[in-house]
Amino acid sequence: MSRRIRRTPYTDCVEAAGVRGFSVVNHMLLPKAYQASIEEDYWHLREHVQIWDVSCQRQVQIEGPDAYKLVQWMTPRDISSAKVGQCLYVPIIDEDAGLINDPVLLVLAENKFWLSIADSDVLLYAKGLALGAGLEVSVTEPDVSPLAVQGPRAEALLGELFGQHIRDIGFFKFGWIEFAGTRQLIARSGYSKQGGFEIYLNGGHHGADLWNAIWQAGEAHNMTPGCPNLIERIEAGLLSYGNEMTRENNPLEIGLDEYCSLDKPVECIGHDALLKISRAGIDRQIRGVLFDGDPCPACSIPWPVTVDGEKVGQITSAIFSPRLKRNIGLSLIDRAYWETDQSVTVYSNDGQLRTGEVTALPFA
Amino acid sequence: MSRRIRRTPYTDCVEAAGVRGFSVVNHMLLPKAYQASIEEDYWHLREHVQIWDVSCQRQVQIEGPDAYKLVQWMTPRDISSAKVGQCLYVPIIDEDAGLINDPVLLVLAENKFWLSIADSDVLLYAKGLALGAGLEVSVTEPDVSPLAVQGPRAEALLGELFGQHIRDIGFFKFGWIEFAGTRQLIARSGYSKQGGFEIYLNGGHHGADLWNAIWQAGEAHNMTPGCPNLIERIEAGLLSYGNEMTRENNPLEIGLDEYCSLDKPVECIGHDALLKISRAGIDRQIRGVLFDGDPCPACSIPWPVTVDGEKVGQITSAIFSPRLKRNIGLSLIDRAYWETDQSVTVYSNDGQLRTGEVTALPFA
Repeated sequence: MSRRIRRTPYTDCVEAAGVRGFSVVNHMLLPKAYQASIEEDYWHLREHVQIWDVSCQRQVQIEGPDAYKLVQWMTPRDISSAKVGQCLYVPIIDEDAGLINDPVLLVLAENKFWLSIADSDVLLYAKGLALGAGLEVSVTEPDVSPLAVQGPRAEALLGELFGQHIRDIGFFKFGWIEFAGTRQLIARSGYSKQGGFEIYLNGGHHGADLWNAIWQAGEAHNMTPGCPNLIERIEAGLLSYGNEMTRENNPLEIGLDEYCSLDKPVECIGHDALLKISRAGIDRQIRGVLFDGDPCPACSIPWPVTVDGEKVGQITSAIFSPRLKRNIGLSLIDRAYWETDQSVTVYSNDGQLRTGEVTALPFA
Repeated sequence: MSRRIRRTPYTDCVEAAGVRGFSVVNHMLLPKAYQASIEEDYWHLREHVQIWDVSCQRQVQIEGPDAYKLVQWMTPRDISSAKVGQCLYVPIIDEDAGLINDPVLLVLAENKFWLSIADSDVLLYAKGLALGAGLEVSVTEPDVSPLAVQGPRAEALLGELFGQHIRDIGFFKFGWIEFAGTRQLIARSGYSKQGGFEIYLNGGHHGADLWNAIWQAGEAHNMTPGCPNLIERIEAGLLSYGNEMTRENNPLEIGLDEYCSLDKPVECIGHDALLKISRAGIDRQIRGVLFDGDPCPACSIPWPVTVDGEKVGQITSAIFSPRLKRNIGLSLIDRAYWETDQSVTVYSNDGQLRTGEVTALPFA
């Protein structure tokens, strides 16, 4: 533990709640496990409500006369009709349409945006672009640390605590709550498919108070401390930057077509490269793979997926699904083999050969 | 463990050698401890030789007609007289002279450079600048993974293994060795003050072979597996990006004056801001602090340093030195209090108040 790997406004609370380990995202601690097993957590998340310290989803604040121009420059998604109060999932690409990040864009004002980022220093990319092109814009990391409340009972819990008006916030929209005399942004979003909200706490010194207020109110809702759950994430087909996608991948092969403006031109760095890829057709695309055998180990290096001894893809995240009672993985699969029910062999890194088949995402 | 936190070409070997934990730097594993205690490792490093997996020192390769221009644009150090074969410590700054990183620059050719980086995505900054300004340059991360051999017996060991010509390589210069039919870059450098080399292995598939060759040759030299040692690093006054410096700091307050061209103008983004800071005079600067009490805990959040109850600085890295038999820390200290022997109080995060005094770096 050193200062370089930053604690969050909630880390003291997270430790008091019995965290068993951390990962590192954006130079910051992300809780990885508490007392419950990942499977217990999975069932709990589907039925109840959890509180997650996701401060590592840092905000890159882009503000100023050229803010809109800079954001559009980084993403192939058309943001021209985005409205204040909206959250937009926006792939960020380079000149070759390689993925730099896949943040959520929050439209705070006409000329003020937050990019709520996955694990790469988007701030440095945005700063470089702005300085290089002489844009009139400031690029900063504000003192904003998201706290997620996820699960089917999140709405009831947060409605009681912060007012029933939060029930009117639509999916991937944000509104505001009062807390400790401050106005705080709350979005209906989160890194699960079980429903819930993220509070973008502005002012880290309120961290413990916010956590404790939710914690106390959560008692009546069987709330537990949690974190992004790998079983739920993979079942839901939620992708992870650094796992399913890197700069080596373009948005189309990762299945992000709907977040790319392919018909209408946009002033985006990699747009020409992306159109070229689109016209040529992609050679591989993300799919699910269901496969047999004992619960598989953690996928820390990509696992080859083969057909007749030939490599046709690689699994980048995998786990045993207690609900589907099979192993599930996310994999790029070559075009000739990407149809549902294609039989494949998976080489998990425990030396086992496992039979399986390709399937659509999300998993059923 | 997930693919997002990348294993290195040496991780299998590191695990076989009994690694006890990892840190994460540049989205990659850095071994943190082996079987020996940090104090045992410290004494060993000072007397013998160690092999360190420092693959996380990723290379940002900048190549093309505008490569020199781009590198100079990022650093306030005058690189106009840098020669092929040189390593230069170059602060990288933004428009406000805030530190983005503090890499080592390797001059590979007139128009080809590597930045061997600390923990931030310099590649994205360089890419952004190049795209924004329309520079003719490619910015990539090559398959290059440094392996360090550190300690007073490093030269003897590597001379035997790769040829005595490596003895002629000067400090912060690089040369070449043959390995497995390939030509590999070797520099006299490393993140310790005990002497040694770093082999910038090009081609990760040679990783295990290189590790094993050095491992075997090291037996006769009492070699152990190691990693940057916190006691040695702090004693030597070696700074760490993310700990002693962030974007909030300028190079002058971090004591990097000699790496900043203050008399001769250079075409660097933050040069005007830096000159302004230089003319106004800095308000604080990095110092050592020697302080009393039991061996201090790990410094995971900055510790206030006070004089007469007033905060005059903050310690960002600290440990007990078994050689000096006192706790040692690195701290920014306000101008009025930065003279050697100034008495201070240190608030370590175990609730203790410790008396101490300011001292010059490196520690005696």
